[in-house]
Amino acid sequence: MQDISKLSAFLENEISTFDFPSQPANLYDPLRYFLTLGGKRMRPILTMLGAELFDVSGKNAVHAAIAIEIFHNFSLIHDDIMDEAPLRRKQPTVHTKWNTNIAILSGDVLLVKAYQEICKQEAKVLPRLLEIFNRTAIEVCEGQQLDMDFETRNNVSIAEYIEMIRLKTSVLLGCALEMGAVVAEAKKEDQELIYTFGENIGVAFQIQDDILDLYADPEKFGKQVGGDVLANKKTLLLLKAYELANPAEIEELNQLKIQSNQSLKIDSTRNLFDKLGIREAARAMMDEHYVIALQALEQINVSESNKKPLKDLADMLLHREI
Amino acid sequence: MQDISKLSAFLENEISTFDFPSQPANLYDPLRYFLTLGGKRMRPILTMLGAELFDVSGKNAVHAAIAIEIFHNFSLIHDDIMDEAPLRRKQPTVHTKWNTNIAILSGDVLLVKAYQEICKQEAKVLPRLLEIFNRTAIEVCEGQQLDMDFETRNNVSIAEYIEMIRLKTSVLLGCALEMGAVVAEAKKEDQELIYTFGENIGVAFQIQDDILDLYADPEKFGKQVGGDVLANKKTLLLLKAYELANPAEIEELNQLKIQSNQSLKIDSTRNLFDKLGIREAARAMMDEHYVIALQALEQINVSESNKKPLKDLADMLLHREI
Repeated sequence: MQDISKLSAFLENEISTFDFPSQPANLYDPLRYFLTLGGKRMRPILTMLGAELFDVSGKNAVHAAIAIEIFHNFSLIHDDIMDEAPLRRKQPTVHTKWNTNIAILSGDVLLVKAYQEICKQEAKVLPRLLEIFNRTAIEVCEGQQLDMDFETRNNVSIAEYIEMIRLKTSVLLGCALEMGAVVAEAKKEDQELIYTFGENIGVAFQIQDDILDLYADPEKFGKQVGGDVLANKKTLLLLKAYELANPAEIEELNQLKIQSNQSLKIDSTRNLFDKLGIREAARAMMDEHYVIALQALEQINVSESNKKPLKDLADMLLHREI
Repeated sequence: MQDISKLSAFLENEISTFDFPSQPANLYDPLRYFLTLGGKRMRPILTMLGAELFDVSGKNAVHAAIAIEIFHNFSLIHDDIMDEAPLRRKQPTVHTKWNTNIAILSGDVLLVKAYQEICKQEAKVLPRLLEIFNRTAIEVCEGQQLDMDFETRNNVSIAEYIEMIRLKTSVLLGCALEMGAVVAEAKKEDQELIYTFGENIGVAFQIQDDILDLYADPEKFGKQVGGDVLANKKTLLLLKAYELANPAEIEELNQLKIQSNQSLKIDSTRNLFDKLGIREAARAMMDEHYVIALQALEQINVSESNKKPLKDLADMLLHREI
């Protein structure tokens, strides 16, 4: 098992030399731009770790790994249009720097490029890789649609919210790991167990994202603390608060939605959440998924040393402060 | 070889029973709607004919055929956004009936569905099917980008225009046929020859589209005659006119661009084109591609009776009046 920093360097080099045609420039320039904006490259590293878990070099899964990263970037380019996001990784989004049509079309071509990368893996594992990838790609779109639907709905349940984040972000982590396991020709049960590990780490990660929005250390946090609160975003914290609040507190939550003093809005929300024990409740849900993830990993019959990088990575992701 | 009407009926039934999940409704309702708007289903029929040419039942290639039709619909949904088209097949487009975000996302999911269909074909032909499909899907995006680029360029050459229509529309006809040939396990040379046939029929078809816009019989033509002229669209006819015109005629073409009297604009353009012999020049280019197509078909070593449906179809497409 190679250490993560070496895999990461190898991968970054592969991505930086990824070859797009020069023409049409309006189609490929945005992709060259977007793919080098950086990011943690967490997903493709998971694919490589998924292979290494079963004693196969992560490099053997590099095309599947790049496909996952490319797919992730495709979904970001299109999501940024839908969310009207001006910035991504502190740089202008594609639809802002070019225009919406170019962002649609270059996103489309990127999705096809992801398939082209998968097809560079050995033919014998191709049907299974595509089965997992296709299913996941569809689920990610479903998750994005649910997320958009939730914006205009007032009765989103916590179960629906968890299902939305599972589809929108977590399944791709499971898929990334499972594709690595498939390249390593792991047993079907083990492929499914590593998928479950990734999926639940993903849900836990996303819940933590919601917690950090309000409870992160402003000194360490990369963005504004309370951003979700200001945007009246239906996060797990807010949904949980509505679930636990008494009628007077519900009225307070409703009033906070239209509070225009930003710091008062954030502080009052945090105070009310603290009274209701929201942070602890969310943390408990996060831990639940973390435990399911670790139990799945436990059941895979490989050495502890093979599992260590995945455990370390999960630990790092779930104890981050940014 | 089954006749085309039987294949067409079989295919229509397969498409009409194509199963989308019920939820999220905002993701799948648009696809149910769009896929049943009809259309000639020319592309998937070509896939089935591509298999039958090599003595394999078209039904064996039905998943590849449906993938081609689904891909075509994906590209229409996204193109309609980019072109701000309100109608498709006389019905509201997806972005008009729902909204742009939904049209982007349901288009995305449809592209993945195309891959899911391809993956239902036998594993042994999968790598080759995907190789052709991926390449073509990328080319179609490139063609759409060139088409958008041309709108704001004043120096588009005829060669560039032909390359644009080749990418945007013709390669998909070649791909459709070739995938059928791959399912039938035809020789590589024969796969490429049937691709060349489809590609060149496609270019000829598209040139005829440009001719019909101005020269169709208004009684038989489904849309307004002269629509491209009114939109100042850079069609082959207009590009050819600029190539053949003398300085005074170029000035006349420039003036016609800003002519606000619609019927005068169309009639004057037609008169000038007639004087320059544009219709004949375009027809000659169309015939050139038709001949290349027939020559490619000629070289395939199968019986004349096997070739007949493709010859008939090509003949029908290129002698249509609508």
